[in-house]
Amino acid sequence: MCRLMLYLGPEATLSALIVEPEHSLIRQSVHSKEREEPLNGDGFGIGWYASGHSAEPAVFRSITPAWNNRNLQNLARVVTSDCVLAHVRAATQSSGVNDANCHPFRWRQYLCMHNGDVANFRLVRRKLLESVCDEAFGNVYGSTDSEHFFALFIDSLLKSNEPDPALRMAQALASAIGRVLELVRGTGAAEDSYLNIAISDGEHAVVSRFTDAADGKPESLYYVTGQIYRDVGPTAKRKGTQAVVVSSERLTPDHRWKEVPPNQIIILRRDRAPQFVDALTAAPL
Amino acid sequence: MCRLMLYLGPEATLSALIVEPEHSLIRQSVHSKEREEPLNGDGFGIGWYASGHSAEPAVFRSITPAWNNRNLQNLARVVTSDCVLAHVRAATQSSGVNDANCHPFRWRQYLCMHNGDVANFRLVRRKLLESVCDEAFGNVYGSTDSEHFFALFIDSLLKSNEPDPALRMAQALASAIGRVLELVRGTGAAEDSYLNIAISDGEHAVVSRFTDAADGKPESLYYVTGQIYRDVGPTAKRKGTQAVVVSSERLTPDHRWKEVPPNQIIILRRDRAPQFVDALTAAPL
Amino acid sequence: MCRLMLYLGPEATLSALIVEPEHSLIRQSVHSKEREEPLNGDGFGIGWYASGHSAEPAVFRSITPAWNNRNLQNLARVVTSDCVLAHVRAATQSSGVNDANCHPFRWRQYLCMHNGDVANFRLVRRKLLESVCDEAFGNVYGSTDSEHFFALFIDSLLKSNEPDPALRMAQALASAIGRVLELVRGTGAAEDSYLNIAISDGEHAVVSRFTDAADGKPESLYYVTGQIYRDVGPTAKRKGTQAVVVSSERLTPDHRWKEVPPNQIIILRRDRAPQFVDALTAAPL
Amino acid sequence: MCRLMLYLGPEATLSALIVEPEHSLIRQSVHSKEREEPLNGDGFGIGWYASGHSAEPAVFRSITPAWNNRNLQNLARVVTSDCVLAHVRAATQSSGVNDANCHPFRWRQYLCMHNGDVANFRLVRRKLLESVCDEAFGNVYGSTDSEHFFALFIDSLLKSNEPDPALRMAQALASAIGRVLELVRGTGAAEDSYLNIAISDGEHAVVSRFTDAADGKPESLYYVTGQIYRDVGPTAKRKGTQAVVVSSERLTPDHRWKEVPPNQIIILRRDRAPQFVDALTAAPL
Repeated sequence: MCRLMLYLGPEATLSALIVEPEHSLIRQSVHSKEREEPLNGDGFGIGWYASGHSAEPAVFRSITPAWNNRNLQNLARVVTSDCVLAHVRAATQSSGVNDANCHPFRWRQYLCMHNGDVANFRLVRRKLLESVCDEAFGNVYGSTDSEHFFALFIDSLLKSNEPDPALRMAQALASAIGRVLELVRGTGAAEDSYLNIAISDGEHAVVSRFTDAADGKPESLYYVTGQIYRDVGPTAKRKGTQAVVVSSERLTPDHRWKEVPPNQIIILRRDRAPQFVDALTAAPL
Repeated sequence: MCRLMLYLGPEATLSALIVEPEHSLIRQSVHSKEREEPLNGDGFGIGWYASGHSAEPAVFRSITPAWNNRNLQNLARVVTSDCVLAHVRAATQSSGVNDANCHPFRWRQYLCMHNGDVANFRLVRRKLLESVCDEAFGNVYGSTDSEHFFALFIDSLLKSNEPDPALRMAQALASAIGRVLELVRGTGAAEDSYLNIAISDGEHAVVSRFTDAADGKPESLYYVTGQIYRDVGPTAKRKGTQAVVVSSERLTPDHRWKEVPPNQIIILRRDRAPQFVDALTAAPL
Repeated sequence: MCRLMLYLGPEATLSALIVEPEHSLIRQSVHSKEREEPLNGDGFGIGWYASGHSAEPAVFRSITPAWNNRNLQNLARVVTSDCVLAHVRAATQSSGVNDANCHPFRWRQYLCMHNGDVANFRLVRRKLLESVCDEAFGNVYGSTDSEHFFALFIDSLLKSNEPDPALRMAQALASAIGRVLELVRGTGAAEDSYLNIAISDGEHAVVSRFTDAADGKPESLYYVTGQIYRDVGPTAKRKGTQAVVVSSERLTPDHRWKEVPPNQIIILRRDRAPQFVDALTAAPL
Repeated sequence: MCRLMLYLGPEATLSALIVEPEHSLIRQSVHSKEREEPLNGDGFGIGWYASGHSAEPAVFRSITPAWNNRNLQNLARVVTSDCVLAHVRAATQSSGVNDANCHPFRWRQYLCMHNGDVANFRLVRRKLLESVCDEAFGNVYGSTDSEHFFALFIDSLLKSNEPDPALRMAQALASAIGRVLELVRGTGAAEDSYLNIAISDGEHAVVSRFTDAADGKPESLYYVTGQIYRDVGPTAKRKGTQAVVVSSERLTPDHRWKEVPPNQIIILRRDRAPQFVDALTAAPL
């Protein structure tokens, strides 16, 4: 599996987000604290929204480990953003290490990344692809369960009429989780799925912490809100001072880190406290 | 598009096949002579069968250009084989440059590579995948038209009862060509497909030179037979002295190079002269 | 050899500089117009200064070709800068294709890139390294003539007391050119050196167009000044509206492009018209 | 630091040597057992001698981790050799991750790899380069302490008149160790050097286990002799049945693994039992 981190807040350098924290994602690529298998060296990816340039986010992905990538270190030092998604990968057997399989995945203004796995994916894949619209189908370039899950999300989003963009994303995420579990059941699989999924459009974000395992223990997921990173850049004031980080592990020893409750989706908006909904129904909790 | 080369004969070094010839494939990666767009720098791949080790061929692929790859030069110098497929790529718009999109593609003991393109592939892709069996579907890891075409071939091969392995491959190739043209027509496309496809199982090979373009001009394809490369290794004698090279361009100034006739498949066997069949019916010519 | 481009002006997207122009550097990586050997596919590099973050510029380098690099396309779309150096490489025999050999090279706030070659470099290398101070020596990580030339520049710069930063760079460049020619002569080489060298500190830049070839024809080098790219970002006004591009080839059909005269150095400052000095003496012309 | 493995014996597949053993080098790339820092993900390299082709060995190196490299898995399955050197790297701060910095390094028929580090290398580097002959100097392409150490070995080897090739290598290795310690002392460094160095010419090999640390504990190094790997290929009989593996860690639970004694060099010949000499004097023990 993998490690992920999402940031929504005032403009900050990538370095402040993914390099400097004591347990930063780059350090997690070498030494994850909360997993038995500590290594996430099968590539990485960073997606970020550039204030004032283009709605379409930039993505930088590589099949080399995050910890030794000089381009990443250079970029992180000078690039700023008010919405960042970052991911380090530990490839599972079923899909190879190549650029098309690195998270985050992009469709229009959306970015998606995943920590976990879809049970029995080799059998699920085909029926999943058959179940989505052409637009969602056409966005699949690689062979990961994660990118295929994103196609389900896209399909659900396109069918939704919900006007609130954050709620629409949360509902589409809950719908996609339900649909993939249904597909897994259809294969007769006894395995469990782990679906920590983070999706953003640059202004809002939704992150699920979910498993259907009998022991009810999803992969770890934490969040922290408040004045966490040094603000930079001229847009900081326009966008409010509320910052949120959601991460597979606590990035700092800060006591304010809290767990995202199991089987819930955390909804992030720039101007509000995080909101929690059920991961299968998107109903408020 | 791309350039390809296939060798079937006595054991020879990769270097004698892909590096040393005057117009070798590696030189074609920089300077193709017979195409307007001379550059094939979007990665490369080599597949070869190792005498005496394993039926499953080895594949070495990279997204860096063939001409400057030191690993390739090192390998080529010391690796020998009696059946080699090599490919340099010029990526088309629709599919990215990553390892999963580098030719040759493998399934069981088969290797497949392609020079050309499937018309209107973005629309064809979905119906193509729906039309093949699970085994063929499960072998698609990337997003190229070429790898998807290979899935059609696999599907046709699995449905065949033909006992002669070379003929079975030729029939499956002809069937796959017919099926993909049918799928293209179904999209209402007015574009033309170019299908120079090389497939081998290590002991036999089939290579098509095909287009349905109105002008009847497929991509170039040549072959030469005889005592063309210095034999090496202890297996040379066992396997006969007949060698055949099929290549997008003439590799040497040798006058014996001949064109593969348009819309035909050339069938190669170790112990016989090349045979030609119709690219759509596999009927002898 | 290679192609290079340097920009100094109001903040602009990398895309406006290296992707969009009709004969942009990325297009030159596939098809150079003014060279016999049209291909620059042996990696690339971009260095840029990020307004307001850090004096140390960012560098993004890769051994894959510029034309198919999706990370580069993504970055170019969202990153802005008021001083950019970009380079596409055609490796010469003597040095391998690896990250350490991609331009631009960095030392402190300086970036350096090179189009051309140092004659007889294999023999020059050792004496060159012996002739520079520890600081310059310690900045050499790879095996290109270009990075070694940069060490000469660093050494000359550190010995200079010239207070004007642009003039100091020009004098150090002229000094380094003289020193390397002296080293070449010491090897008894009859070959010619080609030294189109671009160096910047983010606020000023110097670019030489030089050869000691008997025919007096250096590699091509052009410049254009004025209102050439759409300004972006809040810093545009602060820094003046004068923009300058220096490039191995004319990037646009614009009639304002002029040749940098042979064996001169063009000096760029934000607030002044370009100035020309002799490439060997740094004396005004 | 790093992990290394050297094999000298009857022809065997690379896979039998570096993939299949319970604690194979590829597994050590993810999980080293005998080191605090368990990860060796900063690239890898394999060098091997191809019987009957060329005295110059082949080298395959990559900056991606060994554990997920499909080209490596493919090669390992089909390539055979009677002398193999393999290395997985954990980069130290001072040198970047690029192909030129991956072990093993090559000069003529020799391959060299290193586990450990040269104390105070940034200061040692310059004097080291000044102390070697042009031939040794010209073989340095990157910035690792290991490749620079190899230059010392080359220089010592070229000065030697010892007719026995294995002994000549052992003496040159001992000489290079002494010379590098002298250079370190010259910098006034209080740090310790770790010099587990493996060098082969394809027919013989020498491997040192050395440190000048006060606690006298060099990096781990083991060897095993006998009938350890399944012989393959027609050359097996010609070359004797004695096989030796020297490795940073025991590759199998086999009780025959023994430690190479501290500060000794193990000398391997095809037709004899391993011999041990002092790492500083090359005197028999």
